[in-house]
Amino acid sequence: MATWPENRWYVAAYSSEIGDELFARTICGRPLVLYRTSDGEVVALADRCVHRRFPLSQSHRVDDTIVCGYHGFTYDAGGTCVMVPGQKRIPRTARVPAYQVVEQDTLIWLWVGEGQGDPTDIVRVPWLDSPDYTSVRGMEPLAARYELLVDNLMDLSHETYLHGGYIGTPEVADTAITTEADDEHGIVYVSRHMDDAACPPFYSESTGLHGRITRWQDIEYHPPCLYMLHSRIAPVGELPPPNGPDDKAFHVEVNYAITPETEHSTHDFWMVSRDFALDDQKVSDFLAENNRTVVLQDVVALDLLEQVIEGESDNYQELSINIDTGGLAARRILNAMIGESATPTTATAQSAVGAPAVAGR
Amino acid sequence: MATWPENRWYVAAYSSEIGDELFARTICGRPLVLYRTSDGEVVALADRCVHRRFPLSQSHRVDDTIVCGYHGFTYDAGGTCVMVPGQKRIPRTARVPAYQVVEQDTLIWLWVGEGQGDPTDIVRVPWLDSPDYTSVRGMEPLAARYELLVDNLMDLSHETYLHGGYIGTPEVADTAITTEADDEHGIVYVSRHMDDAACPPFYSESTGLHGRITRWQDIEYHPPCLYMLHSRIAPVGELPPPNGPDDKAFHVEVNYAITPETEHSTHDFWMVSRDFALDDQKVSDFLAENNRTVVLQDVVALDLLEQVIEGESDNYQELSINIDTGGLAARRILNAMIGESATPTTATAQSAVGAPAVAGR
Amino acid sequence: MATWPENRWYVAAYSSEIGDELFARTICGRPLVLYRTSDGEVVALADRCVHRRFPLSQSHRVDDTIVCGYHGFTYDAGGTCVMVPGQKRIPRTARVPAYQVVEQDTLIWLWVGEGQGDPTDIVRVPWLDSPDYTSVRGMEPLAARYELLVDNLMDLSHETYLHGGYIGTPEVADTAITTEADDEHGIVYVSRHMDDAACPPFYSESTGLHGRITRWQDIEYHPPCLYMLHSRIAPVGELPPPNGPDDKAFHVEVNYAITPETEHSTHDFWMVSRDFALDDQKVSDFLAENNRTVVLQDVVALDLLEQVIEGESDNYQELSINIDTGGLAARRILNAMIGESATPTTATAQSAVGAPAVAGR
Repeated sequence: MATWPENRWYVAAYSSEIGDELFARTICGRPLVLYRTSDGEVVALADRCVHRRFPLSQSHRVDDTIVCGYHGFTYDAGGTCVMVPGQKRIPRTARVPAYQVVEQDTLIWLWVGEGQGDPTDIVRVPWLDSPDYTSVRGMEPLAARYELLVDNLMDLSHETYLHGGYIGTPEVADTAITTEADDEHGIVYVSRHMDDAACPPFYSESTGLHGRITRWQDIEYHPPCLYMLHSRIAPVGELPPPNGPDDKAFHVEVNYAITPETEHSTHDFWMVSRDFALDDQKVSDFLAENNRTVVLQDVVALDLLEQVIEGESDNYQELSINIDTGGLAARRILNAMIGESATPTTATAQSAVGAPAVAGR
Repeated sequence: MATWPENRWYVAAYSSEIGDELFARTICGRPLVLYRTSDGEVVALADRCVHRRFPLSQSHRVDDTIVCGYHGFTYDAGGTCVMVPGQKRIPRTARVPAYQVVEQDTLIWLWVGEGQGDPTDIVRVPWLDSPDYTSVRGMEPLAARYELLVDNLMDLSHETYLHGGYIGTPEVADTAITTEADDEHGIVYVSRHMDDAACPPFYSESTGLHGRITRWQDIEYHPPCLYMLHSRIAPVGELPPPNGPDDKAFHVEVNYAITPETEHSTHDFWMVSRDFALDDQKVSDFLAENNRTVVLQDVVALDLLEQVIEGESDNYQELSINIDTGGLAARRILNAMIGESATPTTATAQSAVGAPAVAGR
Repeated sequence: MATWPENRWYVAAYSSEIGDELFARTICGRPLVLYRTSDGEVVALADRCVHRRFPLSQSHRVDDTIVCGYHGFTYDAGGTCVMVPGQKRIPRTARVPAYQVVEQDTLIWLWVGEGQGDPTDIVRVPWLDSPDYTSVRGMEPLAARYELLVDNLMDLSHETYLHGGYIGTPEVADTAITTEADDEHGIVYVSRHMDDAACPPFYSESTGLHGRITRWQDIEYHPPCLYMLHSRIAPVGELPPPNGPDDKAFHVEVNYAITPETEHSTHDFWMVSRDFALDDQKVSDFLAENNRTVVLQDVVALDLLEQVIEGESDNYQELSINIDTGGLAARRILNAMIGESATPTTATAQSAVGAPAVAGR
């Protein structure tokens, strides 16, 4: 049984990553080759020739087909083999699986599971593709299971200790959180509202605020893949007006796409969108560099934890406290989704995002 | 159960590789130390001291004996211990296994199995040691199971895609093959006769033929170890005369010895013998360099395939077509040989090369 | 079942290794963090935060506490958690195991096992901390199981072959040994008295003796961890006087602490103490460099043997001769200790060093 939910949408790549070149990436244990056809459609095929399993990503693109680099089996964009060497007849079974892809909000989403997914189930991330926001982004490979990244992102108290001098200040760990788990819709909310906090360099350098601030962190996690941190920064005492725009505050949308590569590695996609200094390249460069540094601090810590976990017995008993409420809720929902995907014979399994909660969950 | 046939002859080394120095090589999972005694005989002993398993290859040669580098146990060329430290009495069981070796045609053949092998079972490769041929050769270590090299060599359609610009032209993949499996004698024949083909650089540079050619590939595989490709190159329309010498054609004998090192690695011995330009060092250098490049292209592809196979489930269903007939016949014969070697209690098992086919094989 | 005896004292570090910095070392499969408190006491804690297993050794020391580098859980020198983030209440179970430590003779001994060990069971090594001796020392990591180092040290005939030109001469391997196993007290004695031997560089350079020597090697091994080689060097014919000091001889105490790190790696602590040239730094430098070279020769050989053993079947039958008597006795005592530690329910198990021999042992 997979350790991630099947029959779900996962981010496979950024739109900008996929072009004419054959692009190899493993998503949820499935080796894939991706490319963009001459009319701009993104194609995702299983990265194994049906003949002797040679990776198609190590092969040659000719027009919109892939010609296997070993013996020349040739596949069209739907995965159907259209040429084999040494004979005219092409076996009917000569086809590689083609994966359903939806390109939306500058992201390439992939359906991982049985049959076809419902594209309307994909949560929108509008600021990534909006003129009202400017975004920076990156992807860091993580040599750790995706659950460790979920834990990491659901409990931001670690900003104080792991990211001090970047995005952490003492108030993050000191301020209590509120957590709400919407098991029915599969969403976990964690909020931490700091009324009077130091402004960490990540925000002071980008906004120009150097005094004490009001800092709100509102997490919205849609398991398994999409994590949103709605961040609001304003001078101390500046609250959102009851009417009219919240234009005395700075808003940053920090998004992560958490996509398992294998059971022990993860694609850590990170995106930072802001509603201020939209055309200021210096701010963009600073946020990209600073956030990448923060992500790499996580990568070092989580890669180390993965080694710890792999090297030690499974019956280790962790101790959880209040800060872990969001992470534990996320685990519960993920486990329920994994339970559903282990029995994919009912229609429910394929639209589980909107399904009623399983009894007893 | 081993994945290769036991009770068979395998090439352990080229004659030129074995001299005064202790030489370590693992053959079919057996770590060996090889050297040549003062009277020129090649010795192959198990590479493990009987005392504490220290590798004899990491030890010292003194006259025709090996003195273990850890505690000084000393072995003669027959593997018998002739000195132990600190006492006069040498235990009777103090001996390491000595392997039967036959040096013939510039190759060192090793009997892998029970008892003694019959040297007359070894297939001759006369051109390697004939004044009528000039040979170049090499050995590339392969981080892949030997079966992948057998597959590779039995289906030369891959020359078009993997070795284009070296030995591949479109006609190789386009031309149908004929296959004949002699299960009784354990030989597979695959032939591809191209009547009108482009001349690839490998042959145009070495023969001087730059126009269209008649190109014959006649494979003769003697599982498990010896692969022969009889290659005939001539101007288009030039066929072998019914009588008299075929002296308008160029003949190249391409031989491979396919020797398992472990279940996941292989010694890829390659030899190219020609009957033309015998004294032309430039041709020798060119063929050595060009063929080594081709072999390394195979090494890259097969090492990659080994990783694919090790990382994925065993129940993958390959798709085979006409070009695979020779490879499938080779697998069938190899599996029958492995089946025989799993029950080595009968005399048949030790002379299986010439034995009548097992019923039902 | 562990492959080393539990409920025993092991050397975890030299005193000089442990100071203000957090120091990570794995002892008998237990990842530890060690440091010295402001009043000089050595602390050894389990190197895993109770919260999410982050290594405390990768964290920060604040006064005498450790602040976890991930979420800030803070531990005092007894392992008790004194601060958690985001809440006042500290769970009662928030503590990491603290290990019993005894600092003695410049060594830090650690109790590995259940409950508390008896510090008087620790064998004294007085010359390490005596004004009558000068010591040099080091620690080399060994990528091999500790049993191979025990074998190595119990049979010094290997000095002739592996350490020729350093500490080995032909007489070592040629001279018979006497062995005595004191199963009751868990000690193995091996003696080799050479009456007329060449003086190897290790001793000629340090003592100035260049002629033939009387060389005594008296081994005293206290399984599992402490190995002592009492070495006496004198001009040929110079024997210890019946009364009065043995001041015509040079005495070197060579000690090893053999501490398993994991089942396949070992901390190889080595110490050389001499009763001559006490203030001669050149002699100290020479002995440190020479002995380290010798230890590294062992490391190369034992790491290679570990690879041999891991790669081959368990039912390999070693051949043992007279020189192995001490090593075999050591194995027998170690195995008996391991048997005892597998049933740690009786009081006997915790004071096994002085316990009567198990019947049939």
